[in-house]
Amino acid sequence: MPVSSDTLKIAGREFSSRLMVGTGKYTSFEQMVQALEISGAEIITVAVRRVNISDRNKESLLDYIDPKKYTLLPNTAGCYTADDAIRTCRLAREAGLSDFVKLEVLGDEKTLFPDNEELLKAAKILVNEGFTVLPYCSDDVILCKKLEDIGCAAVMPLGAPIGSGLGIRNPYNIRIILENVSVPVIVDAGVGAASDAAIAMELGCAGVLMNTAIAGAQNPVAMAEAMKLAVTAGRLSYLAGRIPRKLYANASSPLDGMIS
Amino acid sequence: MPVSSDTLKIAGREFSSRLMVGTGKYTSFEQMVQALEISGAEIITVAVRRVNISDRNKESLLDYIDPKKYTLLPNTAGCYTADDAIRTCRLAREAGLSDFVKLEVLGDEKTLFPDNEELLKAAKILVNEGFTVLPYCSDDVILCKKLEDIGCAAVMPLGAPIGSGLGIRNPYNIRIILENVSVPVIVDAGVGAASDAAIAMELGCAGVLMNTAIAGAQNPVAMAEAMKLAVTAGRLSYLAGRIPRKLYANASSPLDGMIS
Amino acid sequence: MPVSSDTLKIAGREFSSRLMVGTGKYTSFEQMVQALEISGAEIITVAVRRVNISDRNKESLLDYIDPKKYTLLPNTAGCYTADDAIRTCRLAREAGLSDFVKLEVLGDEKTLFPDNEELLKAAKILVNEGFTVLPYCSDDVILCKKLEDIGCAAVMPLGAPIGSGLGIRNPYNIRIILENVSVPVIVDAGVGAASDAAIAMELGCAGVLMNTAIAGAQNPVAMAEAMKLAVTAGRLSYLAGRIPRKLYANASSPLDGMIS
Amino acid sequence: MPVSSDTLKIAGREFSSRLMVGTGKYTSFEQMVQALEISGAEIITVAVRRVNISDRNKESLLDYIDPKKYTLLPNTAGCYTADDAIRTCRLAREAGLSDFVKLEVLGDEKTLFPDNEELLKAAKILVNEGFTVLPYCSDDVILCKKLEDIGCAAVMPLGAPIGSGLGIRNPYNIRIILENVSVPVIVDAGVGAASDAAIAMELGCAGVLMNTAIAGAQNPVAMAEAMKLAVTAGRLSYLAGRIPRKLYANASSPLDGMIS
Repeated sequence: MPVSSDTLKIAGREFSSRLMVGTGKYTSFEQMVQALEISGAEIITVAVRRVNISDRNKESLLDYIDPKKYTLLPNTAGCYTADDAIRTCRLAREAGLSDFVKLEVLGDEKTLFPDNEELLKAAKILVNEGFTVLPYCSDDVILCKKLEDIGCAAVMPLGAPIGSGLGIRNPYNIRIILENVSVPVIVDAGVGAASDAAIAMELGCAGVLMNTAIAGAQNPVAMAEAMKLAVTAGRLSYLAGRIPRKLYANASSPLDGMIS
Repeated sequence: MPVSSDTLKIAGREFSSRLMVGTGKYTSFEQMVQALEISGAEIITVAVRRVNISDRNKESLLDYIDPKKYTLLPNTAGCYTADDAIRTCRLAREAGLSDFVKLEVLGDEKTLFPDNEELLKAAKILVNEGFTVLPYCSDDVILCKKLEDIGCAAVMPLGAPIGSGLGIRNPYNIRIILENVSVPVIVDAGVGAASDAAIAMELGCAGVLMNTAIAGAQNPVAMAEAMKLAVTAGRLSYLAGRIPRKLYANASSPLDGMIS
Repeated sequence: MPVSSDTLKIAGREFSSRLMVGTGKYTSFEQMVQALEISGAEIITVAVRRVNISDRNKESLLDYIDPKKYTLLPNTAGCYTADDAIRTCRLAREAGLSDFVKLEVLGDEKTLFPDNEELLKAAKILVNEGFTVLPYCSDDVILCKKLEDIGCAAVMPLGAPIGSGLGIRNPYNIRIILENVSVPVIVDAGVGAASDAAIAMELGCAGVLMNTAIAGAQNPVAMAEAMKLAVTAGRLSYLAGRIPRKLYANASSPLDGMIS
Repeated sequence: MPVSSDTLKIAGREFSSRLMVGTGKYTSFEQMVQALEISGAEIITVAVRRVNISDRNKESLLDYIDPKKYTLLPNTAGCYTADDAIRTCRLAREAGLSDFVKLEVLGDEKTLFPDNEELLKAAKILVNEGFTVLPYCSDDVILCKKLEDIGCAAVMPLGAPIGSGLGIRNPYNIRIILENVSVPVIVDAGVGAASDAAIAMELGCAGVLMNTAIAGAQNPVAMAEAMKLAVTAGRLSYLAGRIPRKLYANASSPLDGMIS
């Protein structure tokens, strides 16, 4: 693939940035706006629960995000059942937000791991209702294949727990998912530093979605720039075709199997 | 440190790029020139042995490197004893190349690991002769402290064997070196992909030097760009102050100790 | 806990060995018998599909396993739906094998990852029918909590794919599971070498189940002995209370977070 | 190699245990005696500086170690120069301790990393004086080859800093050393838990030497037993021939390169 024409395609839409970012945890809307801007992200995810969609006279996060500039991706953060998540998506659509949704059904408030059983239920119904569903899920190939079969537009396995900053804890699982699904694989959750984002891209992922790593950094705007550069660096590194790993340069056989 | 004024200082000189690159293994000088250009590197290392310094009428690698644009860093690649390395540095200086040298004394042709005993001998003599010495060495804190005490302008521990592409195999050693020496610590050798370069910078290194990772990639020019972005991304990520690692977001204590 | 009285308790039964082993892939029944013997395992898992339970006049794997010596754990290897797995368990019970079952519902023939959605369905029904269910599952804390809530007697998350020999790829997930469920956590699948089994035990797991690592080794009987020793070593190491990890001995703060 | 006749040979002596243990940091001599006993170690290392060799009327560590049962290996812990280490070895010989010595020349009191330059000097002189020298050194293949060429009876690269409990931080380096030297390679320093010792043996090392991991554990006697079992488990696992690593069992190519 020529590097220059490399774009991300999700459900017929095309994006030049492979970094998707969240909007929570910033100290001010101004800081958020700056970080979003410098991140170069085109897809911005927003928790429906955090947006005041009933009374649009009050100040809202949405006032700070230019819908002509960004593709808004409403998410169901804070939903713990399929029903709750479905209701939240419908609400977002009714409020005119989008029918492109990031589907989260969390399993508990402590670890924020997904409840994949409820996720599958919700995804089926939402796809049937015409939503473009991007599900946050475990790094489980069987689950990802089911989500693809249901008609999800991408799969978004976690790299590590939400907000943990642990990076991609199991690159083997991500590689197995990449080998077995055809929709875009976007690492969602777990990124802590720039190198984590680069690693996701070097594995061959289509994109990376993050929030805490940027918003929770000591300097969120500088970190947003770091992440923009890291995603591009990782993508270019993947496309450029890295040298084989060897025990030393003159070793006769490459260490093909090594992933991280 | 304000991100904007962040520069690399070595022996009184100041550089805005923290990526240093080599000049070997390219398929053509034209490819090399393009890769150097896009890498943004300001310091370019050249094997004295590969440069035709006695008969400057013949075509030479040096014809392709603008000395006004780049700081040339002659290196002693291919030297296996202190004497040989010292002689090579003197030759470079006599030929007007520079007295800023990358000192390599290799231990064997197979693994290309440094011979640190010979390296120390050569470094002592070269520093005394007024060279600015940047030694390629093992990731050994005691050795690095000795090199600093001798008067080396930086230390350049390996991340992994030359040309191996294994990345930083022992980030713990790099961290210990960073805690214990005051001169710039530059990871030299071992980088394979963009994320490896980012990791070096996130550890707090002052820079990264590489050759094979770029020249040996399927698309060296794209990889040179990837590395430029990765070094900046890693540096920004370091300066921005990453979120703490935790088992999950709500875990009470951070995983401070975790390095990679 | 005093080391001497350390036993594994599952569903009211008590075992002194924490190593559970399979019976497939041996080159002969004689080899299997030797390996089982030397492994010290008390729980032996048998694929119901591989046992000739309808015609007990033919030679059967069961002829080689003394039911007085071993606790037989029938498993549903080769089942790809909840229905299939349930039927297989009922068959095993009718044939008088046991109502202590290892429940496997595989997602595909290629990766042998579990289908956790079908697993949950099967587990619910089997627990209701009075089976003591030990499910092979992903290393997913929400799933494990659901399996515990359903009434499973243990959870058996994979360390890595069946037969991969990759060891415990995500010790962070195992630790999170250990923190959040009360039933025994037994690592099932992924072990390759003795150290992998030791690591499982050092994380605090109640036991390890393996088959390929032993049966597929060049010398299965020697590997069975290695695994016996490794499980005991890992358990003792866990109970003995290891030294804290530090960057170096005199470092002021321990690296508490480091897991692997 | 038949498992049964597997022994460790160093400088013409033969040992059935591959675990070597230290004698420092125990809370009492009684505890030390118990731990040594249960560890099964045949080679016991003793800091010459800690032994009262001038006035044998006072209580001494040596009173607790039966020289008929154990091979005493005097060590030069606490020496920071070649001269100091040489003097200490001569003193040990004069006192009738042994001319089988563990040579340590430390680089600083903080990290306890070896000073490999001083180590080489000391090793040369001691070998010439007829000592059987086992040097504690960095995991540096060039250094290890020099130590072998000098005539050392084994090389003892560190797994991680003394007392750090970090395990083998760079198994790639240990593998390169194993490929390039002929004398026994014994991992000395860095072990924290049983699995670390097993990993050393699975890499193909001839033995493991440790002190803090046992003496510093909450229950040193239980940890000593864990280590005994782990070393045997790791050695058996190595000899038994482990299964190849694969991304999943049916993957077409093994992950040969993966080391840890």
